[in-house]
Amino acid sequence: MTTSGKIRIGVFDSGFGGLTVLRALLPQIPTAEFFYLGDTARLPYGSKSQATVARYAVESAQLLESYGADYLVIACNTASALALDAIKSAADVPVLGVIETGADSAAAASATRDVLVLATQATVDSQAYARACAGHGLRTIEKACPLLVPLIEEGWIDSPVTREVLRIYLEQAQEEAKAAGMALDTVLLGCTHYPLLRALLRESLPKDVTILDSAESTAQRVRQELEKMKSLAADSPHAGGANVPACHFYATDSVEKFRTLGSRFLGRPIEKVELIDLGG
Amino acid sequence: MTTSGKIRIGVFDSGFGGLTVLRALLPQIPTAEFFYLGDTARLPYGSKSQATVARYAVESAQLLESYGADYLVIACNTASALALDAIKSAADVPVLGVIETGADSAAAASATRDVLVLATQATVDSQAYARACAGHGLRTIEKACPLLVPLIEEGWIDSPVTREVLRIYLEQAQEEAKAAGMALDTVLLGCTHYPLLRALLRESLPKDVTILDSAESTAQRVRQELEKMKSLAADSPHAGGANVPACHFYATDSVEKFRTLGSRFLGRPIEKVELIDLGG
Repeated sequence: MTTSGKIRIGVFDSGFGGLTVLRALLPQIPTAEFFYLGDTARLPYGSKSQATVARYAVESAQLLESYGADYLVIACNTASALALDAIKSAADVPVLGVIETGADSAAAASATRDVLVLATQATVDSQAYARACAGHGLRTIEKACPLLVPLIEEGWIDSPVTREVLRIYLEQAQEEAKAAGMALDTVLLGCTHYPLLRALLRESLPKDVTILDSAESTAQRVRQELEKMKSLAADSPHAGGANVPACHFYATDSVEKFRTLGSRFLGRPIEKVELIDLGG
Repeated sequence: MTTSGKIRIGVFDSGFGGLTVLRALLPQIPTAEFFYLGDTARLPYGSKSQATVARYAVESAQLLESYGADYLVIACNTASALALDAIKSAADVPVLGVIETGADSAAAASATRDVLVLATQATVDSQAYARACAGHGLRTIEKACPLLVPLIEEGWIDSPVTREVLRIYLEQAQEEAKAAGMALDTVLLGCTHYPLLRALLRESLPKDVTILDSAESTAQRVRQELEKMKSLAADSPHAGGANVPACHFYATDSVEKFRTLGSRFLGRPIEKVELIDLGG
């Protein structure tokens, strides 16, 4: 915590996607000071091994802690799925991942108890969502969608190509669900890039299917946890505060690209990004 | 050189694509011993900055030299385009990239002198191919194709999606050429992944357009250079030797994935891969 009593929240992602989580955090905890780190020199994590992802994520978490973070949000689904225990062991402050909060919101939304999780290959392979959802009595189909991140990073957000790739992925998932006798009524976006495809997904899915992402539920959970820890003043405003919290941005590769692409995820301009070297 | 007089050739790529260059090298220099390093923990390079790519590539080149490499082939187009000078400065052995050899083969093939280069964003941004081609009196259109590597790594080699993505890229390049009054008769594949799309490209391009990649011309150049350096015995067989040279494979991420995906690029099974740590 700073001398002014402001809590410092570190938010970590392999790249830009975690900025959708930061975006949800800002109105929830406007009194905090935020430190966002994107490990852009080593992205993507979603196609890499558990050992490598854990090593990268631990280094990043430790850096945020060295900057004074009192609380760490692992906004990257892949890092949350593969490395949360490793990060918790290495960190001296509380750590929250996005898997549990995503599963919580799916549990609250699903009537059929059958949920589709769209995620990276590494997240699917880890089965972290399946385990977290099973804890709520949910059954899951986990579908790896490795082409969505590159398509989103290219800005092909409403391209016919992206529509066709989504159609193929959803059809394959639906076939798997059918074979298992499942009735999917909830789609959980298990990668922080995917919310940018929400409109396209909405068109591609039946109207009665709910689409969820972890950003909002994670931001709410962070607020609740900090209130429990008495780290937030009781009178700190909830949502809609006019104040814009102080945000510091760090990236391991091109700060120019971070500013340009990151602003798309954050929904507002990013002024200053500091280049840091994690030695990798 | 080993005590047996065998020359040791280090081949470096960010991942698997450089195996297409190794594949071309094996019959050209069957008497050599090969050391292939794929920096899979930090791929892809093609979307990253010059500084980061140079740092990664220099570390990898130095590692291959420490393994005893007498000659280094930078099989990665992005590393060749962005970091060849940095690697040459850091290395104590001769270094060959794939940009010059690719430009040479385009110069030999093109009648109109107007060449289309398909490459990663970073390679296009560097304009390395444009400069190398200009040295031969060629005009170039350089087209970044960031979605092709993910599509190829997914194995969507003859998918309608990949066909459509290619169509879009080629149409954009053709429009650019038209506006510049150019008549493209040669397409140079400026990324070692792209040869896997050769059949699809053949279907997508007019019959009189020549498709080239750097693998064969690079392998020939390596042989010529080594003969000049008298590092090859004069009677060493050219092509078609029955001997399979010794190959050692190293990767910075999952060796299992390297074996599986790498075999597709090398065109034969890869038995053993050693995991190494470049500290990143």
